[in-house]
Amino acid sequence: MTSCSPTPKKIIVFGSGNFGSCLADHLGDSEHEVSMWSREKSFVEYFNEHHKNPRYLKDHSFPNTIRAVGPDLPDADFVKRIDVLLFAIPTQGLRSLLARLRPSLDDAHLPLLIFVNKGIETDTNALTLEIIADTCGKDIAKVSTFLSGPSFATEIVRRQPTMVSIASLSEEHAERASLVFHQPWFRCYRGNDPIGIELAGALKNVYAIASGMADGLGYENNTRASLITRGLSEMTRIGVAYGANPLTFLSMAGVGDLFLTCSSLTSRNYTVGVRLGRGERLEEVLETLGSVAEGVTTAKGLKAITDDLDVPAPLANAVYQVLYEGRNVREQAQALLERPMVKELDLPGKSGGPARALMKKLGIEL
Amino acid sequence: MTSCSPTPKKIIVFGSGNFGSCLADHLGDSEHEVSMWSREKSFVEYFNEHHKNPRYLKDHSFPNTIRAVGPDLPDADFVKRIDVLLFAIPTQGLRSLLARLRPSLDDAHLPLLIFVNKGIETDTNALTLEIIADTCGKDIAKVSTFLSGPSFATEIVRRQPTMVSIASLSEEHAERASLVFHQPWFRCYRGNDPIGIELAGALKNVYAIASGMADGLGYENNTRASLITRGLSEMTRIGVAYGANPLTFLSMAGVGDLFLTCSSLTSRNYTVGVRLGRGERLEEVLETLGSVAEGVTTAKGLKAITDDLDVPAPLANAVYQVLYEGRNVREQAQALLERPMVKELDLPGKSGGPARALMKKLGIEL
Repeated sequence: MTSCSPTPKKIIVFGSGNFGSCLADHLGDSEHEVSMWSREKSFVEYFNEHHKNPRYLKDHSFPNTIRAVGPDLPDADFVKRIDVLLFAIPTQGLRSLLARLRPSLDDAHLPLLIFVNKGIETDTNALTLEIIADTCGKDIAKVSTFLSGPSFATEIVRRQPTMVSIASLSEEHAERASLVFHQPWFRCYRGNDPIGIELAGALKNVYAIASGMADGLGYENNTRASLITRGLSEMTRIGVAYGANPLTFLSMAGVGDLFLTCSSLTSRNYTVGVRLGRGERLEEVLETLGSVAEGVTTAKGLKAITDDLDVPAPLANAVYQVLYEGRNVREQAQALLERPMVKELDLPGKSGGPARALMKKLGIEL
Repeated sequence: MTSCSPTPKKIIVFGSGNFGSCLADHLGDSEHEVSMWSREKSFVEYFNEHHKNPRYLKDHSFPNTIRAVGPDLPDADFVKRIDVLLFAIPTQGLRSLLARLRPSLDDAHLPLLIFVNKGIETDTNALTLEIIADTCGKDIAKVSTFLSGPSFATEIVRRQPTMVSIASLSEEHAERASLVFHQPWFRCYRGNDPIGIELAGALKNVYAIASGMADGLGYENNTRASLITRGLSEMTRIGVAYGANPLTFLSMAGVGDLFLTCSSLTSRNYTVGVRLGRGERLEEVLETLGSVAEGVTTAKGLKAITDDLDVPAPLANAVYQVLYEGRNVREQAQALLERPMVKELDLPGKSGGPARALMKKLGIEL
């Protein structure tokens, strides 16, 4: 395959987890100069000696050109020379990282900021766009970009063709971020609805749990395809009530990632659902899972959001009640199947409260 | 599970194939009085003696109350006593069947007409709604309903929960058709865009071939999820150019059936793609398939439609070129991956030519 030769950039990836390291690998392979920050000294030393990640993608040899840095945050001099900051740490840690980094950012020569974390901040129920506005100011939030899509890390490091959504309120910055990543085996599709992309990325994990539950209960292909469709419809309804564009849910970050996450045991959220559907208790599942299933946290934040917006979300609610109110999975499934007949696409008439409030915060009047 | 008790109806199912017979089975089980018409005398005799379909779902015992009729078409007296005509024959045979049935229909007491066939009529490129208008007149077309969704017949006869879209230009008739079918294990979602539902049902078979090809070439989960997403995006773009509502593609008949068809060897179209992707010749595949893969025919009709509408359809085109111009599958895949970066959701500005023409034919001004 013919590769693209992007203008080489100096890139730092914050986070050395599964997704951060496969993106560092991809970028390092595309002739960029890549650093990967970890807050663990042992990781930094191990990676720089062996060019392997001791925890994720263990068998994979990373390009020798990628340098691990840390455990201290890079200083202002280092950051000044960087073209692209890529954030691949959990959403719950983002506010404090950005607050610490903010003084090192030069407003006159701002690097490109790209975010790949997914999920809603606990306590505040804030999206990442809002966390950026709170910590870095509205001018930085307005040019931040968001990357999301169906992308198992194990397939990315083997250069299996992967496609993602890249969205920003600034069309120019979405295009610049796309040019950093784009290759025939990593295609980038631009959009201008970061709120929709973020919501899709967070919410899909809740529907992946639901899909897993159905499979755990023994339901087959018709049911799974239908459940994914109703999940997409529910996500879209919530998105519109929130202020996103319904068509954003047709994107790689929407339907693409939903489909991937709802149909593979590689997905932790789906696996949680399968095990709950087979009758295991939640504590048991979470104790033995070995890593975080974001959907479990997101289900809680989502409940608050849908209650607040007064938007019907029977699937997400059913998942919430299993996770947090001890309800029985099979009874929840039967109750859903016995709901009255409805119109298929029932988007809320009034829409956009939270998105409008956030845009106002950014100085954008809709 | 609590079942619904619909008002019992007299129903005739035209067609005794895979889908027609599983729907007859479901309806017969819901206390309706069901006849199933076949044009083969041997089928009628075998079914009425053994309550089994000799060709499809062979292991399944149908309710004793379902009566096979034929091979002659039922006469006007029979049709007059019927509440619901369900059409489950291939699209290519529909025009002549409707023309022969039309004289038996009493305009003053019209039964409910429900269509489950999918595909585009060869030669004319007409949708079923247009075939109905041509043969039965616009008043019948306006109240006809269309049922479509992710529904493997083998799962329906085992009462695996299945959900479908039911659409009609008449909201009242969509609701009446839903009430005939709806049960907790067969949920019906109503819509008012039969053109979108029909296009989705036909087009998805072409993308199922593409998805199979990718799997046959050895691509994995990321690629499949991305390809389905681009397929959905392309279907939606074609639908809008045709005059359908883009949100219809988020329905059971759209994304739901696309998921199912693109990810299972139970789908004939997907299987054709897999075998072509592995390097078999088309003639070889079709000779040994044992049944029709509608996507192969639809790819040809779709090419004419997208050329005519001047709407970009690179995926459908790539499939067409493999099927009808002897192009190599791997080269087509590589050419697609090397296409330039684009915006993610790029719906045509002007839209609706063919749908507007069809609505005009029905006396509806948009």
